[in-house]
Formats: sequence, structure tokens, C-alpha cells
Amino acid sequence: MSTRTVIRGGLVITASDEVHADVLIEDGRVAALAVPGTQEWGADRVIDATGKYVIPGGVDAHTHMELPFGGTFASDTFETGTRAAAWGGTTTIVDFAVQSVGHSLREGLDAWHAKAEGNCAIDYGFHMIVSDVNQDTLKEMDLLVEEGVTSFKQFMAYPGVFYSDDGQILRAMQRSAENGGLIMMHAENGIAIDVLVEQALARGETDPRYHGEVRKALLEAEATHRAIRLAQVAGAPLYVVHVSAMEAVAELARARDEGLNVFGETCPQYLFLSTDNLAEPGFEGAKYVCSTPLRPREHQAQLWKGLRTNDLQVVSTDHCPFCFAGQKELGRGDFSKIPNGMPGVENRMDLLHQAVVEGHISRRRWIEIACATPARMFGMYPKKGTIAPGSDADIVIYDPGAEQVMSAETHHMNVDYSAYEGKRTTGRVETVLSRGEVVINEREYTGRAGHGTYTPRSTCQYLT
Amino acid sequence: MSTRTVIRGGLVITASDEVHADVLIEDGRVAALAVPGTQEWGADRVIDATGKYVIPGGVDAHTHMELPFGGTFASDTFETGTRAAAWGGTTTIVDFAVQSVGHSLREGLDAWHAKAEGNCAIDYGFHMIVSDVNQDTLKEMDLLVEEGVTSFKQFMAYPGVFYSDDGQILRAMQRSAENGGLIMMHAENGIAIDVLVEQALARGETDPRYHGEVRKALLEAEATHRAIRLAQVAGAPLYVVHVSAMEAVAELARARDEGLNVFGETCPQYLFLSTDNLAEPGFEGAKYVCSTPLRPREHQAQLWKGLRTNDLQVVSTDHCPFCFAGQKELGRGDFSKIPNGMPGVENRMDLLHQAVVEGHISRRRWIEIACATPARMFGMYPKKGTIAPGSDADIVIYDPGAEQVMSAETHHMNVDYSAYEGKRTTGRVETVLSRGEVVINEREYTGRAGHGTYTPRSTCQYLT
Amino acid sequence: MSTRTVIRGGLVITASDEVHADVLIEDGRVAALAVPGTQEWGADRVIDATGKYVIPGGVDAHTHMELPFGGTFASDTFETGTRAAAWGGTTTIVDFAVQSVGHSLREGLDAWHAKAEGNCAIDYGFHMIVSDVNQDTLKEMDLLVEEGVTSFKQFMAYPGVFYSDDGQILRAMQRSAENGGLIMMHAENGIAIDVLVEQALARGETDPRYHGEVRKALLEAEATHRAIRLAQVAGAPLYVVHVSAMEAVAELARARDEGLNVFGETCPQYLFLSTDNLAEPGFEGAKYVCSTPLRPREHQAQLWKGLRTNDLQVVSTDHCPFCFAGQKELGRGDFSKIPNGMPGVENRMDLLHQAVVEGHISRRRWIEIACATPARMFGMYPKKGTIAPGSDADIVIYDPGAEQVMSAETHHMNVDYSAYEGKRTTGRVETVLSRGEVVINEREYTGRAGHGTYTPRSTCQYLT
Amino acid sequence: MSTRTVIRGGLVITASDEVHADVLIEDGRVAALAVPGTQEWGADRVIDATGKYVIPGGVDAHTHMELPFGGTFASDTFETGTRAAAWGGTTTIVDFAVQSVGHSLREGLDAWHAKAEGNCAIDYGFHMIVSDVNQDTLKEMDLLVEEGVTSFKQFMAYPGVFYSDDGQILRAMQRSAENGGLIMMHAENGIAIDVLVEQALARGETDPRYHGEVRKALLEAEATHRAIRLAQVAGAPLYVVHVSAMEAVAELARARDEGLNVFGETCPQYLFLSTDNLAEPGFEGAKYVCSTPLRPREHQAQLWKGLRTNDLQVVSTDHCPFCFAGQKELGRGDFSKIPNGMPGVENRMDLLHQAVVEGHISRRRWIEIACATPARMFGMYPKKGTIAPGSDADIVIYDPGAEQVMSAETHHMNVDYSAYEGKRTTGRVETVLSRGEVVINEREYTGRAGHGTYTPRSTCQYLT
Repeated sequence: MSTRTVIRGGLVITASDEVHADVLIEDGRVAALAVPGTQEWGADRVIDATGKYVIPGGVDAHTHMELPFGGTFASDTFETGTRAAAWGGTTTIVDFAVQSVGHSLREGLDAWHAKAEGNCAIDYGFHMIVSDVNQDTLKEMDLLVEEGVTSFKQFMAYPGVFYSDDGQILRAMQRSAENGGLIMMHAENGIAIDVLVEQALARGETDPRYHGEVRKALLEAEATHRAIRLAQVAGAPLYVVHVSAMEAVAELARARDEGLNVFGETCPQYLFLSTDNLAEPGFEGAKYVCSTPLRPREHQAQLWKGLRTNDLQVVSTDHCPFCFAGQKELGRGDFSKIPNGMPGVENRMDLLHQAVVEGHISRRRWIEIACATPARMFGMYPKKGTIAPGSDADIVIYDPGAEQVMSAETHHMNVDYSAYEGKRTTGRVETVLSRGEVVINEREYTGRAGHGTYTPRSTCQYLT
Repeated sequence: MSTRTVIRGGLVITASDEVHADVLIEDGRVAALAVPGTQEWGADRVIDATGKYVIPGGVDAHTHMELPFGGTFASDTFETGTRAAAWGGTTTIVDFAVQSVGHSLREGLDAWHAKAEGNCAIDYGFHMIVSDVNQDTLKEMDLLVEEGVTSFKQFMAYPGVFYSDDGQILRAMQRSAENGGLIMMHAENGIAIDVLVEQALARGETDPRYHGEVRKALLEAEATHRAIRLAQVAGAPLYVVHVSAMEAVAELARARDEGLNVFGETCPQYLFLSTDNLAEPGFEGAKYVCSTPLRPREHQAQLWKGLRTNDLQVVSTDHCPFCFAGQKELGRGDFSKIPNGMPGVENRMDLLHQAVVEGHISRRRWIEIACATPARMFGMYPKKGTIAPGSDADIVIYDPGAEQVMSAETHHMNVDYSAYEGKRTTGRVETVLSRGEVVINEREYTGRAGHGTYTPRSTCQYLT
Repeated sequence: MSTRTVIRGGLVITASDEVHADVLIEDGRVAALAVPGTQEWGADRVIDATGKYVIPGGVDAHTHMELPFGGTFASDTFETGTRAAAWGGTTTIVDFAVQSVGHSLREGLDAWHAKAEGNCAIDYGFHMIVSDVNQDTLKEMDLLVEEGVTSFKQFMAYPGVFYSDDGQILRAMQRSAENGGLIMMHAENGIAIDVLVEQALARGETDPRYHGEVRKALLEAEATHRAIRLAQVAGAPLYVVHVSAMEAVAELARARDEGLNVFGETCPQYLFLSTDNLAEPGFEGAKYVCSTPLRPREHQAQLWKGLRTNDLQVVSTDHCPFCFAGQKELGRGDFSKIPNGMPGVENRMDLLHQAVVEGHISRRRWIEIACATPARMFGMYPKKGTIAPGSDADIVIYDPGAEQVMSAETHHMNVDYSAYEGKRTTGRVETVLSRGEVVINEREYTGRAGHGTYTPRSTCQYLT
Repeated sequence: MSTRTVIRGGLVITASDEVHADVLIEDGRVAALAVPGTQEWGADRVIDATGKYVIPGGVDAHTHMELPFGGTFASDTFETGTRAAAWGGTTTIVDFAVQSVGHSLREGLDAWHAKAEGNCAIDYGFHMIVSDVNQDTLKEMDLLVEEGVTSFKQFMAYPGVFYSDDGQILRAMQRSAENGGLIMMHAENGIAIDVLVEQALARGETDPRYHGEVRKALLEAEATHRAIRLAQVAGAPLYVVHVSAMEAVAELARARDEGLNVFGETCPQYLFLSTDNLAEPGFEGAKYVCSTPLRPREHQAQLWKGLRTNDLQVVSTDHCPFCFAGQKELGRGDFSKIPNGMPGVENRMDLLHQAVVEGHISRRRWIEIACATPARMFGMYPKKGTIAPGSDADIVIYDPGAEQVMSAETHHMNVDYSAYEGKRTTGRVETVLSRGEVVINEREYTGRAGHGTYTPRSTCQYLT
């Protein structure tokens, strides 16, 4: 027999609406939204949300749990990482399965399923990193789309590792134009960047800050433009991941003015951090090494503008944590050996709420870029990303007035530093439901590894 | 005691969602949305919407009932016009009260209240046309904003009638930047156009098609740009009405790329008709005389693109009908004497659904541009423009598969021609509720003059 | 019998070439250029230019000698002003005759001929300021073009004085499209600016620096764009005078990318001075009051870029001096009463050579923007603006290594201050010939009032 | 003892001036320009140019004599090709020496010197095609710049043959930023194009017209943009060869608006021919196969506009002839095997004069894009490209009124077809001098193989 939960008295905020409504949950899904007092629901459980926001659980469309990179592994497992996500109000992640060169997509996907299955606190899906485009791979793409892995990441950076050349990119895009897949692009001209890396190291420029200098904004913008034109030739949509340079935003804006189905994601680190962090003394800057790199502070305003004008549509984390001790330290004396990546899956919802507090975006836009659009973009809407009759009951009770201080001492990610150490923010996750089950209850973890299930996805729902 | 109505089994479409849900209505408002079967509602009335769309009633933010113009009056009264609106699935109009030069805003507003009160089949609000900016007018603007008339139209066209010079525009914009009002702009360089009109008539170019030739696209684009820059100087948002020229869309796109709060409205006539209609033989072209004028066919694609890229946000009708016989005919032998305006309040929702059928826009975008955004833009959301707990129960049951042929013989507007005579479209309004009352019941009018009530509005809810 | 002069041993620099050549002058014109030593010329006079530049005399296309403005007169007469011009290496000016409202062009032109005739040290031509466009004026424009007054200035600023509305502008442009005239535009939205002036004064903002604040860059850009579109409608070319705002340069660049015959002039004051000067303490800022106003320093780089990319084509002075004592002082306590204008006719060639020294432009570009293009633009080429067989022998021997300090104590303009007081520059005029006559001889004035003759002009030679 | 020649009575047209002047030639160089009658020159020879144009000999900065390509050789030798050039009024060519992969620049350059020496009718210089960027090559670039080979071509097309990847391009650009060299770029995304070629052939699309379809305009524009950004990163100027797509022109225009030293060359075939030619029936289209390919007709207007706005600066021929019989025929049944290239060195000056006749460009612009700018761009000015004291006496007497019909039957290029067969043009080369020697005398060839000498070049003189 089914159980009924009612969340009562809160302000329900979705991408489109802000209404005072009760939310009835039955069998793990939203059964009804109603004006308070409309009906006697006969609920088994009542959650009081008076004075709180009732928002869809966050959808983080870009995480890398346990990713092998640079001879080590991202320090969060699916277990620790999804638990931290839940603490941060995120109830769905889409992680990246990796094809190794010379291997099939299937092998990579199976490996990632094995890592995740039975370990996750919240629901998860997979994108597929395509490292080796060939006829077999192209055929496998069709199969993956059918089974719910509908997005494929390619890299214009990292020659010799994940890198695809323009011909491989074009072929994958052509295939996705047919099978409905969405190409996600790491847009940096890695061939040119590697020349600059080599030259910098030869000049003795080995500190973390040089990571930001060699990976030039112009080379992100160039690759962004190139990916756009290749997608245009292929007649395919395009999603550019972790946009950090204002020049890249300009390329996206131009493409969107032309009416192309081109989309851009940015991440909290680009909105809140800058090359000032990369230049922190000692080897501290290594904490902030990720690619695309942090940019000078003036880029932030252009990213916020892009989020407001919808030239950027999604904020994901690119969560890919490496501990400072033992991992980031691999790059002492050679910035190019610092594992690329930063923690953040737990911080995203709060940082974006802070942006609401500071006036960068509206409340509804907060939910749109963090929940609704990623769900639509990757084929999970309205199951995920909103609160509507029939949606999964992935719901966060958010206290807009609570204050907190971000810190490695208190966070739940398995990493020994916080990129936002000491930062004060207003707003805090209080209670989190995943498919109707309470996984965080008034800031106590009540979930369990294995509650989270794999979520196959439909094709992109954001095309115009 | 309150009555309960349930709309059952339909696909509820809003700007953001498409869900199969029952809609419970109580006391004229939406009380709940629920997964079908969730609850026994104890409804007094059940409307079966199986196989139909359940959509918010249309919000037409630009109508001119009974407008005095060129020595005659728009042929629809508030009674006939709002009834026709209901037939077409529109449940809210915002009409324009007119200040005459030398008179106060209050006088104009009172006059329009008098015309509308007790006569409307659906709800209505007012914008205010400001023809005479002076210190008194500016002070009155503050008062009007407070009482719910929160938008003010100015004209860069029609020198000697509605025309404001750039100083008057700047002053009004400055005032609106303070009081929260929104300036709506008729953006055509009327001073330059009047020179071209005079010259055309002097050359004997008197046919209706010359109306389209003298009111040049470049002069619409120029005025659009000028209005944008004046708004930027004033620090005020701007809403440009009836955008028809692709060059004007380009100016709006540029401003939006700059992050300005600049908005554009277009109308069905610009999306579906062209200068080909103005050039129809005999004096037939007069039926299509409106300002801004119809443009060559190639502009249509750019307007659709603008609607998809959200460089245009709203489709209104600029409904301002004049009968061919006796009214349009005033301009035989002199196109400048043809009353400017076209009927359309009844056709908008159907024409935009036809655009869905033809692939120009999505279903959700249809509701967004026709219901949700106009409601937000003019401060009526979520009361109007959506279906959410607490919203007014302004709801249309729309049959997406029904076919119809537009014709003056069958339409309900008080005008002797249809601008779309003979046009076949797919989709039809079946039943319409206004605040819970059925005003069209399975294509029978069951409403009444006086049901519609005046709707004061808050300030713009669409700013970023 | 004719006399022959040879200028020997210099580096002849024109807009296109830099060649070591002797220049033979006969009957006031350039008879030959030759490799040194080619020929025994039998010259009566030999000027040794070894180590010097031999350049065309400057063409200053924008001066206002004796202009009545704001109840006073520009302090340089044609006699003092043209003598100062010669000192500064300028051998041709084009001054502005003024039509007063209610009077004919002819009356204005006759008045200016009377002021100039017999008084000038160097050659001069006239543009015509058109203050009152009507049918008679339009007809007179044809006559003036035929007699060599081929350019007409209109003002979008100064309502009630020089101001033309958009209809008057369009009519004048249409006429010039037919008769070959060139419309020169003062592009500032004076209607809007006057509102801001009134408001600033009402707030007690009366100091000179407010002159710069109310005449906003956006309102210069707006007017520039508007003038461009009106010219496009008329099918006429356009020359925008004294461009100072980078936003206006952007509008010109856009128009030029579209292939329009749109041209822009800037002035040394915008390249070398800024709002910092307007904000000088006491009433000192009044010295720098001119319209368009000086802009913040960051605009300078964009102006230099525009000069390099040929989005700006000409540097003129807009020489319009008013003494600080007694004239500028009229505006104490009310910046709007400060006569608009600055001295500069003597400084232009040196300041632009300084720009060569500082790397902003090349030597040839110096001559192009200061001599050749103004001559072409206003129909005097190759008579003026170059050194070629048949050209007028208006030639400057310029010492590129000499240093000087600009100062009111040493300059020859009839004004009690220098806008560049104390500025050190490298390069100096040594000797100046006007039609073969030496008017400055090794920094001694040897000319005379009345040597300069009126130069009728052909239509614009710069159209593409 | 030196001889003197005078060209009398013609209209001397250079990039900057049009003057009626006599031209005195002594020792192969221009000794003087003079007003007719100025001087008794004591000339040994007088050429009457009354009623004719006297123009600088053409500078064709892009030829491929005897180029090995696709298993065959371009059909013009330096002997036949330079003779044809002279017939067409071109007196200087800059041909491309080729580095083969695995070999040094020096080897390639020596080989090309050997081909040319003693065989040329007119002067010639060399660019260097860099196919294999490595540390040795980079060092050799410095040496070549010093000895007068100051420009280096790289290919973003032709993988496996001439192709350089973005890292090689960046390195070469960095080097040229230091040594003053100019990188010339074949800008097409060859990696992507090769995918499309393979797919087209697999679909059985083997006709010549598919050559135009697979080499997409967007992929030329993409590569153009990429080259621009790489140059920007390197701080180097860039010259893009054979621009044919309007989208590529737009990228150049954008870069130039940004003030970058980016230049574009187009060719007569893109201005006068189109994909209509590629689609000619039978295998005729093969005659028009070159890369970048011919584009649809609407691109022509944008190329002309680019030439007028100076977003394109140079018109060269990319002369690379292959006979239809035996050479072009290698590609029957497989368009990818058709040797890429077209004849044209003889036609350029006439075709561009025809553009003057048709109103696309002015006379001076004709000389600028065909003589002066290529000479400046590649460091030969004012020796080549103008008529000024000290210039080489490379002079063409051009009859502007003569009519001719282009045809393989009458042309002098060693190729069995004309790309302009049957085209009527107005204007014809009558007499040609190369360093004072008459090589074409009233349409009779009086030159000789070996007259033409190698011309070392300085670095680019066109930078701003």
C-alpha cells in the first residue's frame, strides 16, 4: 500500500513559477500541487515547510566520480560523491563513463555502471566520453542512445588522451544528428595549448598560475567557434561544457543569434573564483587547477550576463576532486602534472542561491539553470528538474535565511580542501527527498548507498 | 458555498510544462493540479478534456477597442471585441487608454474605464497612451502605477497626434525608471516617414501598397535603436510594440546581447502576411494597412527566428479593426487617410497553434509568447498566463486536431472582413473558462457582458 | 616669366609614398618630382630640405573663424586664424559659412566671403551650415554645389539654433544624393541632451565638467546611427564631424562593414585630451568645453584604432577659439553658457606627427588623415593634399627631430590660452609654401593677408 | 652611358593619384614625373601614351609555375608563365617554393631558384611553402627572411601533403612574429573536408561539382577564424590566401574591426565565376576545380564589397594551370583526383579593369589591389607597384577603350583552355616595360627569357 507525504506551507519555486502550495507525494512521485487547505489528503507524513522554499532537487549534469586522470583517481567515489551531492541539495547527477582508446563504448559504460551500482545515495545517469571515433564506435552510439545514454563528450584538448580531431568530431556530430544524441564539447585548442605548455616549462614557468596563462581564453574561444561550425556543418546541436572565457561566451551568443541549437554550461568556480586563486602563494594555486582554467576576474561579469541572457543555459560543477596532499602535489615543479579538477558537487546549489542573494539572477532562474534546464537538456524532464504532477519527488526544503560557512572541515566531499574555504553564504539545504524518500532530514543524513538508481535518459528536450 | 469544477484527462500545457493532470477549480481559481486518479475531489462539475489540451487562457497585451483614429472609431466595442477574444481562446486583454494632448492621463483613463465597465466578456486591464509629457503627466504616471496601470505607450510616429519627441520620451523613461512603469514604444521615425508620405502622394503614389513603401524598415530599425539608447540613458526597461522589420529585430538582438532589459512584441499579421497583401489589386490592400506596416515575405523567417531565440518575447494582436466599407474606404485615392489597423483578437491563439503545427515553435513556446510572458511582462502573473495553484481559472480546452477555415462569415469580431479569409488551420478552441465560469462551452457562447472585470496590474515581472 | 623653385634633398612623404626626390615648382604648382640629380632644373631658388620631410600642406576641413556663438564671436579672424594655420603647417582651411534661420544660404555665404576675402594667409574654401531647410534652401543647395560649395552641415544638436529635425535632414540628404553634395553632421541628440542639461542645472551641477556628463556618449552614438540610417534611406553619403565617443566609432565601423559611404572625422582634442581636463579645478575646465565633449581617457584608444582601421578618415581641428577671459567666463555658474569651442588650427600637424612618434599611426597615414583625405573628401584633390605633378605647391618642410613646447605664449592663434599648454612634442614646421610662395621661412612669417584665395571645390572624391 | 625613355601624354594612375604627366625613365628606373612640357628631357626614346593609361606593372603575389600536384605538374613553366604574365600586364610574380616533408626549406628554395633562373620574362620573387615545421625549419625561416624570402605559406588543408596542425602553425607564427616574416594561410579545415570527400565518393558523388559541395564555405570560414586567433595568440600578422566564401570575408572583417593585422586575398575566379561553372555538363566542370572552390554566385557581391571596404586587400591569381586533356582528366570518376588549380596570370589585370568598367571598383583601387598593395604586403614597395621617382620602370601602357575576347586560342598561357572562354572585356594591355625594357611593344612580344631577375624582398610594409 502506498504512503502519502505532504509538504506543507512552503513557497514552491520552479523555473517558471513561485506559488504557495502544498505538495502531495505518493509512491515516490509528486501526486498533486494544491492551494493550502484545498483538500484533506490523508497523509502519512507531513513535512512543515513554512517560511522555506520547496524546490526541485538539483541536477548536476557534469560530475567525474572516481575518474582516472593523470595517474591517479578523482577522490570521491560514487558513494561519497553522491552523499555529498545530497547534502548539497542535488538529487541527480549525470556522470561521465569513459571509452579508452582501442576499447568499445560498451566496455567503458559497463565499467562505470559497475562503479556506481549499489553505491549511490541519489539517482544518476551517464554521459559517454568518446575517445576513439571509428565505425564501430559510431554504431555503438546508436545503441547507447536507445538505452538512455544520449549524450557524448568529445575533447578538443588533451591530445593523446581524450582528444578527437575535427574529422572525428564531425563524424560523431553527423551520427548524433541522426540518432538524436547530443555532443558535449570540451572546447580548448589542445594542440596549440600543448605548444604553449612546452614553451612555458622550458622557460621555467612551472607554478600553478602558468596553467592559467598557457590555456588562453582565445584558444577556448577558438575551439568553441570551431565546434559550433562543425556542428552547423553536421546539422547537429552542440553543448559546450565548462565555459569560462568571456570570448567563448561571445561566440556562443553569436551562434545563438543565428538561431543555432548551441548551448553553454558554466560552473561555480568560474563565477566565484579567478586567476587570483591560481596565483595564491606557495603551491596553494594547485587547488584551483582545472581545465578550462579559471580566468581573470573581469570574465565573471560576462558569465553572469550570459546566464541572464540565456547565452549560457546550465551551471554544473565539473566535480572532479583531487586531494591536495598526494594528488595535487604530483604537479609540484610542473604545473602540467597537476591533476585537473576541483570539488564542488556539494556547493553548487548554495553558491547559486548566493547569486540570487547578491542580485545576479532571480530565484526562478536559479532553479532553471541548476535543475530544470539540465534535466531538459539531457532528457530527464519532467521526471527530474521540476515539481509537477507526475514528477519524481526529488525535492529540497531550502531555508533561504540560514547562514553557513563553507569549509573542508564541515563538507562531506572526500577531499582535503574546499575551494571556497571560509566563504559565508546565506541559504541552506534543510531536508532532501529523493523519489519521496527523505535522504537528508533537517541536516541529518538519513539516506543510504544503493537508494540511488540508474536513470536512463531520452534525447535532448531543449532544442528549438 | 463554493463550487468545484474538475477538468479531467487533458494534457496541461504551460510555458514550462506538459503534464497529464486533472485541474481542480474552486472559487474561480485553480485549487490543485494532480495526477489523474489521485483524489476524489467531490466536484460539482466535470469537464472531460481527454485528447485535448488544457491551456491557460490567452493574454492579448495589445488591443484598441473603440479607438478613435483618423476621424472614425475602431469597429469593435469592448463588448463585441472581448466576446470575439473569448471565442478565440483569449481571456485577458490589455487595452490602451488614450491621453489627448492638453488633457490629463486621468481623464483619458476614466473615459476608457467608462467604455469598458460592464461590457466585457473577459477580464481586462489598461495601458496608458501618453501623448503629452509634462510635469503634471509625469506625476500622474506615479499615481497610475500605484493603482495598476503600470505601462505607458509613447509614439515616435504620428507627429501632431500621438508623437513624443526624444526629450519627452527621455523624461517619461526616467520617470518609469523610478516608479517601475514600463515604456511601450511605437518605434517608427514618423518625422522622416511623413516626408516620404508627402513625396509619394506628390508623385501620385496613392494606392495602399505605398503605405508599405514609405514606412521603411530602416526607419523602424532606426527608431527601435533610438528608443533603446534613450532607455539605456534613462536606466529604464523598454518594450517595443508590433515589431515587423527584420532590421528592427536585429537591433533588439544586439541590445539583448548587451544584457539590456529590452523586449519586443510582434503580431500575427507580420508572421503570416506580407507586402503581397498590401499590393492586392483594387483597393483590397487597404484591409492590410496598419503601422508598422506589413513587410516583404523574407522578414517572416527573421521574426520566427526572433521568437525562437527570445529576442522577441510576446505575440499580441494590435487588434484595431476598421470595416472595409465606410472606414478603410476613407483612404481611397490617398493611402495616408486609410485608418491604420487590422482585426485579429479572435485569431491569435489559432494562428500561433498553426505555427506549432508547421514547426516554427514548440507547444510550450506557444503558451509562453501568447499567455505567460505577456502576463509576466505586464504584472499579472501567476494570476493570469499559467495554470498553477492559486491562478485565476482562465482556462481553454483546445482541440489540437480540429480543422477550421478563417472567414468573416464565421468570425465574431465586428468587422466586415477577415485578414485571413479562407486560411485553413488545424486546432480549435472548444471550451473557455474565465475565472472558473464557462464562457464558451463546446463552441457555444455562454458568457455575458459584464462578467469580465478590470484587472489592476503590478509592475513588470520580466526584468533580469 | 615664370620662376622655378626646387626643394632639394628631402624625403617626400605623401599618403601613398615616401621617396627621396627633388620637387620642382613652377608657377605656383608642382611641375616635377625627380630622383635627385636627374636634371639641371635651372631653378631661381633652391630650398635645401636635407634631413627634412617634404610634405603636402595640411588641409584643415573644419574651422570656425569669427563664428558668432552664444552671444560672442570666435576670437580668431580669418586673418589671425589663417596666419596661425600657416605657422602650423596648414595651407588650406575649409570654414563654415552660416545660414541663419529665415535667411537664404546666399546671404550667409556672401557674409562669410566678405569676412575672408583679402584677409587670408592661405587658401580657403567654404562649407555651408544649413539651419533652415525649406524648398528655397534645397534649390539653393544645387546652385552652391555648382559654384564650389559642395558640402552642407546640419546639426542634430542645438535645438532652436542650428538644429534640423529628421525630416529636414532627410530632405537635405535626398537633395545631396542628387546634386552630389555631401552632408556633414553634428551628431548628438540635442533634444535629449537639453533635457539632461536642464536637469543638471536644476540639481546645481553647474561646473564645466557637467558639460561632459550631460552630453552622453550614448547620445552621440545614437545620433550617429540615426544619421547613418537617414543617409541610407536617402541614398546619400554622410560625413560625421568631430566624432569623440567610442560608441559612435562603433556605429561608423558597422556602417562601413555594410559598405555604406559613411565617413568620420575626429579632432586632436579627442585624441589627446579627456574629461580629466574638463574636471580641472577652478573654472579651468571651461577651456576644454566643446561639443561633442571630451570623453573619458579610454575612448582615445578606440579613436586611434578607428584611424588605423580607416573607420575614421579625417582629423580636423574644429578650431573655434574663445578667450578664457571674457568669453569662456560667460559660463561661470552655468556650464551651458560657456561658448563651445577650442583653439587648435596651429597644433594639428604637430600633434599628429607626435602620434607618429608615439607609434599610433604611420608617417603616410599622418599625411593621409591630415592632408590627402580631407582634400579628396571635399573635392580639392590633387590640387590640395598631395605633392604630384600639377598639384598646387602647398608644401611644408618639416623637421622631424626638432622639439617644441606648446604654449599660449608662443602660439599665433588669437586666444589667451593653449589647450596643450606645456606639452612637449617632437617635430616642427620649418618652412611653408602656399602655391609656391614662401609664407613661413625657417620659422619666420613671410606671408601676407590676402595671399590666400578662395578655392571652389568639386564634389566628394572619396566615394566607393 | 644611360639611356632615357619618356612616356608622354598619358594619364598616370597609381593607387593614390591620377595625373596627366610625362614619365622619365633612366637606367631602368623612374627618374621623374612631370607636368607635360615642363622640361626638355633629351630622351633617346619617346613612347606616346596619349589617350592611354600609364600604370604600374601588375604584381601577382600568388603563382605556381611548374608546381608538382596530384602526380602531375602545373603546365606553365617559369618561361611560359612569365611570358603570359607580361602579355597580361603583370611585371612581377611571387611564386611559391615548396618544402617537402622531411627536407629543408633550403632544398626547396634552391630547387625553385633552379627552375626560374634564366627563364623568366619578368621579375620574380619567392614565398616559401612550409610543409614540415620543426626546430630546423624554424631556424631556417630566420635565414630566409634575411635573404629576402619573407613570407611563408602554411596549409590547414591537404592532410598528409602540405598540412600543418595548429601547433605547427602556432610555432611558425611565433617565429614570424620575431623575424618579421608573414604567414600566408590556405584556410580550409582539411581534416573535416576529407571526411566529407570520403562520404561523397562513397555515395557515388564523383562529378566535379561535388568538389564545390564538400569544401564547404563554413569550413573555409572556420579555418579563417582559427588562423586569425592563432595569429592573435602569436602576436603575428596574417595573410589569408584565395578567400572565396562570404563567411570568410565576414571573419576577416571582424578581425580588422578589432584592429588586427589580418589581410585577405581573393582571385579573379571567385569574382567572376561560380559553382555554376563547376556544374557545367560533361566533365567540363573540372576546368574550374581549385581550392578554395568556386562558390555560389551570391558570394561575389560580398567579395566585391570586401574589396571596396578594404577587408580584402589583394587580388592575385593563384595561377596553377593544368590542361584539360591528360591532366584535369585524371579525375574522371573521382573529383578528388582532379588536379586543383586554374590558369589566370594573363587575365588578372584585364578582368579587374573590367570591374572598373562595370563599376565595382575605382581605377585607383584597381591599381591598389593589383599592384601597390601586393608590393607593399610582400616588401617590394616602392620598387614595384607604383610609378614614383626611384621605382623600377615596370610600366604598362593600357588602352582603356580597346575591346577583346578571352580565349585559349589567343592567350599565351601553356594550357589548353581558358576559364573565361568567350568573355568580352573592355581595356587591353598595349605596351609593357620591365625595368625600362620594352617586353611587350604594341601587342608584340619583345622580351626574352632571362630578362626577369630574382627580387629579394623586405618584410611586410602593410602593417598598422
